Amino acid sequence: MSYAEQLGAYVCESRLESIPQEVRHEAKRALLNIVGCALGGADHPATDIALSAVGPFGGPATATVLGRTERTDPLLAALLNGISSHVHDYDDTLPGNFIHASCPVGSAALACASAGAVTGANFLAAFILGFEVTARVGNATYPAHYEAGWHSTGTIGTVGAAVAVGRLLRLSPNEMAHAIGLALTQAAGLREMFGSMAKSFHPGRSAQSGYMAALLAQKGFTAGLNVLEGPRGFAAVQAGTFDLEKLTHRLGETFELSVNTYKPYPSGLVIHPTIDACSQLRAAHHLAADEIARVELRVAPIVKDLCNKKVVATGLEAKFSIYHAAAIGLARGKGGLAEFTDAAANDPQLKRLRDLTEATADPSVKDDAVVVSVHLQDGRQIGMTLDKTLGSLSRPLSDGQLEDKFREQAAALAPGRADAFLHGCWEVEALPDMAGLIDLCVPEVRPQARAS
Amino acid sequence: MSYAEQLGAYVCESRLESIPQEVRHEAKRALLNIVGCALGGADHPATDIALSAVGPFGGPATATVLGRTERTDPLLAALLNGISSHVHDYDDTLPGNFIHASCPVGSAALACASAGAVTGANFLAAFILGFEVTARVGNATYPAHYEAGWHSTGTIGTVGAAVAVGRLLRLSPNEMAHAIGLALTQAAGLREMFGSMAKSFHPGRSAQSGYMAALLAQKGFTAGLNVLEGPRGFAAVQAGTFDLEKLTHRLGETFELSVNTYKPYPSGLVIHPTIDACSQLRAAHHLAADEIARVELRVAPIVKDLCNKKVVATGLEAKFSIYHAAAIGLARGKGGLAEFTDAAANDPQLKRLRDLTEATADPSVKDDAVVVSVHLQDGRQIGMTLDKTLGSLSRPLSDGQLEDKFREQAAALAPGRADAFLHGCWEVEALPDMAGLIDLCVPEVRPQARAS
Repeated sequence: MSYAEQLGAYVCESRLESIPQEVRHEAKRALLNIVGCALGGADHPATDIALSAVGPFGGPATATVLGRTERTDPLLAALLNGISSHVHDYDDTLPGNFIHASCPVGSAALACASAGAVTGANFLAAFILGFEVTARVGNATYPAHYEAGWHSTGTIGTVGAAVAVGRLLRLSPNEMAHAIGLALTQAAGLREMFGSMAKSFHPGRSAQSGYMAALLAQKGFTAGLNVLEGPRGFAAVQAGTFDLEKLTHRLGETFELSVNTYKPYPSGLVIHPTIDACSQLRAAHHLAADEIARVELRVAPIVKDLCNKKVVATGLEAKFSIYHAAAIGLARGKGGLAEFTDAAANDPQLKRLRDLTEATADPSVKDDAVVVSVHLQDGRQIGMTLDKTLGSLSRPLSDGQLEDKFREQAAALAPGRADAFLHGCWEVEALPDMAGLIDLCVPEVRPQARAS
Repeated sequence: MSYAEQLGAYVCESRLESIPQEVRHEAKRALLNIVGCALGGADHPATDIALSAVGPFGGPATATVLGRTERTDPLLAALLNGISSHVHDYDDTLPGNFIHASCPVGSAALACASAGAVTGANFLAAFILGFEVTARVGNATYPAHYEAGWHSTGTIGTVGAAVAVGRLLRLSPNEMAHAIGLALTQAAGLREMFGSMAKSFHPGRSAQSGYMAALLAQKGFTAGLNVLEGPRGFAAVQAGTFDLEKLTHRLGETFELSVNTYKPYPSGLVIHPTIDACSQLRAAHHLAADEIARVELRVAPIVKDLCNKKVVATGLEAKFSIYHAAAIGLARGKGGLAEFTDAAANDPQLKRLRDLTEATADPSVKDDAVVVSVHLQDGRQIGMTLDKTLGSLSRPLSDGQLEDKFREQAAALAPGRADAFLHGCWEVEALPDMAGLIDLCVPEVRPQARAS
């Protein structure tokens, strides 16, 4: 059997009961996180433009668009969910291959489930299996695929979206194998797009393409089943170097959701330790921003390579400024969506703190660490060394912290809806129909697009 | 300016009057040919399945699907046109890079024009410019892109579809540059799919993706403008070796339509000389099939590598059998759609001729040549050496031969419609509205899907 057939058979035959309880719990955390990200990005200009451009071509409006009052067909809803849930760079990350698997998988599966009768248990299984196949194709082709210049969330996400939707549509194993082929032959997305709206378009289109692959396969459309191992297949053409045994090694025994991570801050990962440490310093010393005279950071060299931007005019630039990271931690004690807006970038207090901060590259400082020294106006000096940043595998966000992150992004929902969603999400296996849960994610009024 | 901006500026500012008359005539030939191919493939199972799978998700039915009674939204019509016009491997070919450019470009442009008020002159310019950009991106990245395993009609077709639709939507040069980026970051399609329905899905999805790129760019969605030359852009990631000067060298002065070719037979190119020569022998000697005792072919070595299949059970297999090529030429004097059906593959007369044919690889015979010897039952021996096969650049199909090919594929249209289309196509620049011409391509009754 080809790898597509082996994966197809596993995906169709797997039972939720055979998936460990802790994996199911992690899936709920991932689901809660990705829905929150979609709500937080639903009013972003990228989401708004895509809806205005393609919405008029949408089919029968049977599907919910997360965070929007507009309804559309589920394929288009998958696209929009994928854009909104990725656009703030706030979604989850597999640290082993840098794929944000919940975005394409969840975006497609939620669109599908909003349009049909899907139980919570069936949804959870489809999400876990779509996530698993995405992660495994990612592991099998990492790092060559990513280093070649591919945005792997966009490329490999197609197969996870196809698997999740295909499972919800109850494809046969043979149909699922063809869906995997039809998905991977649509794998696209260049890292050259980073910094433009097209970055968030990638996982959106990926969700939509995988969804279409499942629909086509369901009716008998055929693909080449050697799509993974063939000489002109995905691994050979889009990675070159690969280890396809990772596709099926201990399949059904280990689950990649176990090593999924969640961002506490919607910014470049390498500035997370500084936001974390500065927020802790502020809380421990009850700092006021105007007490601060000077800040010294010792950071891993990669931080200065990627995020050495002191003059910051936009929220997007702020996401990649180590100086902004120190400023928001010290002045606000947090780094949420509000700390990465254009308004925050131009806040005079944050600008003052950025200007009086220096950052030194220090090869002895690891990527997830930082050393902070703060000199106060009264001459005192305080500081801390942070080893393991919040949100990493060794210090994961707690369920409560994920709930707080969700509530922050769900501000547009009517009172009570965010808590109702959280309650439903933790109990998802018991839900007779997912549509009710997903409908909680519709705001009362159409969001106004804002500057990012 | 980036290459995307240079191409965008040219495409927006070019005027039909500045395009040479012979190029415009070639565009009409390409248009006539691709519409004919779409009509010929409209009842293929691949088209039928795609319509049944995705049709229910289509938006407002403002667009014509070539060769079908069903109407749908123009994005979905672009997908279906692309599948139907490629599924018989009967569309045009750029011999310099093996791209079938009219398929994605025409499929998207015809869908767009069927849904809006587009003059024939504007349509013709959009088609020529979309074709040109496709061909140039193909030339700039050939052969590395193709040899890496990409189905370049599917990958590079996205940009041509975006350019053609973007021109019809009157994008600004800046919008067009973003459309080019949004198109190429969707470039996908693996050659591993050859032999399955996914092969024809590639240019269909390409037409649809390019169309979406133009719609998004029109509303302000952004892409990375270094999509062609950037270190993580299309050429670097999907070719590796390339010559980007070919993108703009003599742009607006030379036109790649001038080197476009049209297949006389819906089969693998390398068996074309044999069909051609055997058809000529039959006509010259008034051969009847049962007079034939033995056939000897001397063919280029590549023919035996690719098409050495003597036992043939399906129409698809027949497309890649050098023995079937000889049989249909000698028995029927032609190689049209009817010669590559499952019925033809199982015709006892054709089977007999396949069985009594021998093919010898001869390195002295070029790819577009063949030497045929036919031994008759009465002891006579006849033969011919063919140098330049019909349909090659040195012996192109005449306008009349293209018309005959069109009529063969347009059999499902009501009487008079094929001729009305041909008349309109030759006079396309004078048409006030393309919709009338395109509506001629709708059959009276819904075609029945047939075995391929």
